[in-house]
Amino acid sequence: MTHVTPTRLSDGRELIYFDAREDSVARHRDASLVRDARGLPARGPAGTARFDALSGEWIAVAAHRQSRTHLPPADQCPLCPTTPANLSEIPASDYEVVVFENRFSSFGPDLGELPGAPEWGTTATAYGRCEVVAFDSAHEGSFGSLSAERARTVIDAWAQRTEALSAMPGIKQVFCFENRGADIGVTLLHPHGQIYAYPFIPPRAATLAARAAAYFDATDGKQTLMGHALASERSAGDRMVIEGEHFSAFVPFAARWPLEVHLVPHRQVADLSGLAGEERDELTTVYLDLLGRLDALYPTPTPYIAAWQQAPIDDALRPASYLHLQLTSPRRAADKLKFLAGSEAAMGAFINDTTPEKVAEALRSAVPGTPRKDQA
Amino acid sequence: MTHVTPTRLSDGRELIYFDAREDSVARHRDASLVRDARGLPARGPAGTARFDALSGEWIAVAAHRQSRTHLPPADQCPLCPTTPANLSEIPASDYEVVVFENRFSSFGPDLGELPGAPEWGTTATAYGRCEVVAFDSAHEGSFGSLSAERARTVIDAWAQRTEALSAMPGIKQVFCFENRGADIGVTLLHPHGQIYAYPFIPPRAATLAARAAAYFDATDGKQTLMGHALASERSAGDRMVIEGEHFSAFVPFAARWPLEVHLVPHRQVADLSGLAGEERDELTTVYLDLLGRLDALYPTPTPYIAAWQQAPIDDALRPASYLHLQLTSPRRAADKLKFLAGSEAAMGAFINDTTPEKVAEALRSAVPGTPRKDQA
Repeated sequence: MTHVTPTRLSDGRELIYFDAREDSVARHRDASLVRDARGLPARGPAGTARFDALSGEWIAVAAHRQSRTHLPPADQCPLCPTTPANLSEIPASDYEVVVFENRFSSFGPDLGELPGAPEWGTTATAYGRCEVVAFDSAHEGSFGSLSAERARTVIDAWAQRTEALSAMPGIKQVFCFENRGADIGVTLLHPHGQIYAYPFIPPRAATLAARAAAYFDATDGKQTLMGHALASERSAGDRMVIEGEHFSAFVPFAARWPLEVHLVPHRQVADLSGLAGEERDELTTVYLDLLGRLDALYPTPTPYIAAWQQAPIDDALRPASYLHLQLTSPRRAADKLKFLAGSEAAMGAFINDTTPEKVAEALRSAVPGTPRKDQA
Repeated sequence: MTHVTPTRLSDGRELIYFDAREDSVARHRDASLVRDARGLPARGPAGTARFDALSGEWIAVAAHRQSRTHLPPADQCPLCPTTPANLSEIPASDYEVVVFENRFSSFGPDLGELPGAPEWGTTATAYGRCEVVAFDSAHEGSFGSLSAERARTVIDAWAQRTEALSAMPGIKQVFCFENRGADIGVTLLHPHGQIYAYPFIPPRAATLAARAAAYFDATDGKQTLMGHALASERSAGDRMVIEGEHFSAFVPFAARWPLEVHLVPHRQVADLSGLAGEERDELTTVYLDLLGRLDALYPTPTPYIAAWQQAPIDDALRPASYLHLQLTSPRRAADKLKFLAGSEAAMGAFINDTTPEKVAEALRSAVPGTPRKDQA
């Protein structure tokens, strides 16, 4: 069982401890042990969001983020537990999993509704909330290096935050994700993920939700699009990576990236908060296994984006939506990354230089914990 | 005036010389001087396109592209004129501008119609055509380093190819673009661009076209969305970079990238082939000026994607569509690139860490030909 202990940082930001162990809980409920001694200045106002009339998208303008922390040394890490020499973002002397509001936030802290009929020139407050999830108190690693116990607590934290953020005014989408690897721009080595609570349904989530809703309607609400894809992948078999009792992982039929895996629950749920205890238990195992395989493909760790696609906070779209993880990596060889050039970046048309079946075969035969020595 | 001389390479690929000078034309019309002596094997079949039911997008699977040429030394450059020691892709001993079918092609060479009602599991031939545009015979540079005469010929080549490719069976979108800079994955130093002729309307072009059509309809066909944006930008002024008689360049109100400029004709045309002679003349000057300013921002050349957004080959969408160039760069400081991490890559929600007005001011005050010495 995961205990939830909410606190506040000295500038008013929320910081929440998620603990599986009783002694951690006791320590984090003692106000004197989790006091933020930094006396931070009050937070600035939220940034702005501008409406792009050409595409219909909202763009967050976050000029204050240019100065954010970039690959700090271990003794100045803002995600390590606080020591006398390093008053970090996390006031406790130790912790299991912590979630807190991002100091360099693209959305929020203000909450509210964006204008309903935006046009060219419409500016609004960048409502919403951005949170950081510290996966573990150890300074280096990523989700895949967590113990099973710790990974399970992170899953509970994601679920709790998804539920809490979904209930906040104006939030339309909660997005839990992990960026891993300096090669793709990660600025902190400490194992962590992020949660964005958007005041709009982001373009790709909107596309997925609209397609899912159209399929659901066309089958009179009897089938979901992801349910159909999952059944088809399990039946075809040649792109499967892991098949569990509650979860399957496969390289999707039409993968866009050189490395792409979808991790999908066998039961339709809208978001992470809908997963039952035994599903979360198996997700822990399957996800750690999957990340271990990914890192066994090459001699060095593989950069990736792990993105939880959850249902938008929208009554019309939720019944057809189906939680799944999209794990993607631009790595196309031991020493080569795929770049998004003209076709992908400017047109959104993806070209995949390998076949999904070949990637699935490599992941199936990979042995977690034993990275390849040669240049695969 | 630009002369067009079509020829064939030894594997049957089309190669076309575009020449402004009479002596070039005469040389390229002499079959003995442009014969491809390599005796290349016949081309392989087209790759495949897979339908992604979750997003409604077609993904090209081009496994044969993994082996393509990567940053070859100057004496083996495939885009330099042929010499006895380097039988390049271009058989002539010199040239002005050349367009030829890409040997490592994501689409084509087969042409045809994709299935009309694709679903999960639908595979098709990756119909279409990919062309390379060699901007100049000199080995190093980019569009911005071309002479005005040469740049003008490239514009004519783009226009001619747009018209010719648009008339080919099954082509739904012609996309002329230049990727510049090894930092964003460019594999050849020789100044060149590419043209993709897609068998579908790519996702981003489809979004822009649908938004444009909705606006056009809402104004009873009296106004275009881009015309409105252009007039608004010229009126606001604080994001303008260059204002000419026929073209304006500005940082768009809702820029998605740290560096983003739209270059827009004052008259609505559907694509580059619709530009009149005097418009092409001014485009040459304005575009070279713009690229010069971009490279004057920092001590080193700025990587970019220059993407011509043209009307889809679709009778319903063309009347509202409005040609423009979207010039984007991930550069956010002298030594920093913006990476597309979770929010952008997985959700399509962009966060811009600077303001469009500040970028426009920097471009206005930049002096082409004099890169900044300091770390801007």
